[in-house]
Amino acid sequence: MKRKILITGGAGFIGSHLAEKLVDEGHSVIVLDSFITGSINNVRHLIGRDNFQIYRHDVTEPYSVEVDYIYNLACPASPIHYQRNPMKTLLTCIHGTINALDLAVKNKARLLHTSTSEIYGEPAEHSQREQSWGNVNSVGPRSCYAEGKRIAETLLVNYSKEYDVDIRIARIFNTYGPRMQVDDGRVVSNFITQALGNKPITIYGTGLQTRSFCFVSYLIEGLVGLMESDYSLPVNLGCPDERTIKEIAELIIQLVNSRSSIMYGPVPKEDPVRRKPDTSLAKKVLDWRPKINIEDGLHETIKYFQELWPAPVFCTSCYESISHIFSLS
Amino acid sequence: MKRKILITGGAGFIGSHLAEKLVDEGHSVIVLDSFITGSINNVRHLIGRDNFQIYRHDVTEPYSVEVDYIYNLACPASPIHYQRNPMKTLLTCIHGTINALDLAVKNKARLLHTSTSEIYGEPAEHSQREQSWGNVNSVGPRSCYAEGKRIAETLLVNYSKEYDVDIRIARIFNTYGPRMQVDDGRVVSNFITQALGNKPITIYGTGLQTRSFCFVSYLIEGLVGLMESDYSLPVNLGCPDERTIKEIAELIIQLVNSRSSIMYGPVPKEDPVRRKPDTSLAKKVLDWRPKINIEDGLHETIKYFQELWPAPVFCTSCYESISHIFSLS
Repeated sequence: MKRKILITGGAGFIGSHLAEKLVDEGHSVIVLDSFITGSINNVRHLIGRDNFQIYRHDVTEPYSVEVDYIYNLACPASPIHYQRNPMKTLLTCIHGTINALDLAVKNKARLLHTSTSEIYGEPAEHSQREQSWGNVNSVGPRSCYAEGKRIAETLLVNYSKEYDVDIRIARIFNTYGPRMQVDDGRVVSNFITQALGNKPITIYGTGLQTRSFCFVSYLIEGLVGLMESDYSLPVNLGCPDERTIKEIAELIIQLVNSRSSIMYGPVPKEDPVRRKPDTSLAKKVLDWRPKINIEDGLHETIKYFQELWPAPVFCTSCYESISHIFSLS
Repeated sequence: MKRKILITGGAGFIGSHLAEKLVDEGHSVIVLDSFITGSINNVRHLIGRDNFQIYRHDVTEPYSVEVDYIYNLACPASPIHYQRNPMKTLLTCIHGTINALDLAVKNKARLLHTSTSEIYGEPAEHSQREQSWGNVNSVGPRSCYAEGKRIAETLLVNYSKEYDVDIRIARIFNTYGPRMQVDDGRVVSNFITQALGNKPITIYGTGLQTRSFCFVSYLIEGLVGLMESDYSLPVNLGCPDERTIKEIAELIIQLVNSRSSIMYGPVPKEDPVRRKPDTSLAKKVLDWRPKINIEDGLHETIKYFQELWPAPVFCTSCYESISHIFSLS
C-alpha cells in the first residue's frame, strides 16, 4: 500500500537513506529539514522525482502537512554538532517531538520517533536491553542530547496515552555509511578522513572503549520494519558486533592502505566506555537482524569518502538556488 | 537587604511556608499559583499584608513581573496528583522552567529551581549523593514527573550557560509538615488521616521500604540558604533520618493514640525501595543540617490535621471571591 510519508530531518545521514528507500518503493515522501546539520547533497538525486518533495523547515516551529506516517528524525546527532548549540538541541527534542505528536493527532497518522542508545548513558548492564533505565547525568556536557532524547520518549508515551497516538520508538545505536558528514567528529568519519590524508589517526582515550557499528542500510530496514509493526514500546536498532576503537582504526588503515599512524589524545568527558545493543527484542517483534560485515560496510563508506576527496562538497549557499526547497510558513 | 521575590507554586505545601518566611522577613513577595494542587487556605493568613501579593496563573503560560529572586516551585508533587494529568505535569516542568528562565534573563534575577529526589529513581547507590546520575525509567508510570524534573535541570544548566542566568538547583527529598494535603496520597498525610479516623493504616508493600522525612521548616531554611549561596550546581535538601514505612505507621498510631490497625496492600509500580539523601554537600556549601526530631515534627503535623478534622476545608470555589487573586494575562 502506497503511503504519504513525512520524514523530519530527511536530508540528514540516516534520513536521506530512508527517504531514498521510501521513494524507490513508490511512496509519496515529504522531507522537512532545517539544513543545520543535514545537507542537500544527500538528497539531490531525489529532487525532481514525482513522489519526492523537500522543504526547508525547523521542526521547533509548528507545521502542517497531510500524511499517513511520520518518521521523526530531526535532531543534531553527533556530539560536536549537538554541543555546538545545546539549547537548540534540547528544544529540537522537546518542541520537535511535541509538533510531530500534534501532527500525528491531526492526521491520525502513525509516528515513529528515533531515540538513541545515548539514553542508556553509562549503564551498569552490558549489553543494553530495552529494560535498562539508563544512567545519565542530567546536568553533564552530553545532557542536552541524552536528556533531550529521554524526555522525547517520555513525551511520546504520555502524550500517546492521553491523545491515543499510534507511536513507535527506535533506539538507534552507532550507525555508519555513505553520507556521514566529513566534519561530524565521529569515529568512522574521522578515521577515514585521516587515513585518506595519511594523517595520524587520533584515538581519544586508550582505544579499548568499544562501540558496535551498524551499516546504515540495515538500520533503514529496521526502521521501516518497526513502522510497519504493531510494537509501540522502545526497540533497540543496532549491530551487536562490538569492536574496540583501536580495532576500527587499524581496520580502516588497512582498508584504505594508508600510511597513517595512531595517536592518542585525552578521552572526552563522560564518553561511554562500552556500547553494545541487545537486539533480541528487534529479532522477536520485527524479525530483524543486521548483517555483521564491517569490512564490506567500511569499504562502501571509504568509497563514498574517496569520491568526495580531496574537496568534500558541503556547500550551504547552493541551497537557495534549488527551487524545490521553500519554507512551509 | 529586602528583595522583590517571586514564588511560583507559592500556595502549595512548601511554597506557602516559604512565602510566609519571606514575608515575615520583610521582603516583597509575589506568589503565582494555578491552584491545581495549591490551596488558598495555605496563604489566607498572608493576604492583606502589605508585602504580599498573590495571582492565579498557570506557569506553562508566559508571565512578566519585576523581581530580584525567583523560586520556581510550581509543579504537582505527589504521585496521585502528577499522574492525574501526566501531560500537564510534563509541560509544567518544561514550559514552567523555560518561562522562569526567560523571566530571570529579562530581570537579571537569580533563579532557584526545586528539583526532587525522584530524579535519582532507583539508584544502585545508597544513600543518594549529587554525583549519582540516577536510574529512571523514561517510559514508566512515574516518568512524567521524574523525567520532567530531570529535563528541567538540563534546561537550567544549558540555558544558564547560554544566557548567563544565575541559577540554584535544590533536589528536595520527602518533606512533611502542616499544610500537606489531606488527599495527596502521601505516607504521612495518609497515615495521619487514617489514624485520626481510627481506620486501618494502609501500607503498600512490605512496609520495609524506607524514606527519610524532613520537617518543612528545616527545608525552608535550606532553600533560603541555597538561594543566598554562591553554589549553582544541584544540592540535596532532605533529612538523612532513614525510617521504614512500618516504623512511621507505628509512630503515628502511637502519637495519635489511635485504635488503627495496619493493613498491607500491593506495592505501586516502580515505587522506590530506599530513599535517603547524602546531605554532606549542603552541610559544606550552605552550613545546613536539618534537625532530626521526627516525633516533634509529626506532633506538629498531627495537630494541624486535628484542627482540620473531621471536615478538612479545601474549597476551590471560594477562590473566586478573593479579590487579591486575579489573572496576570
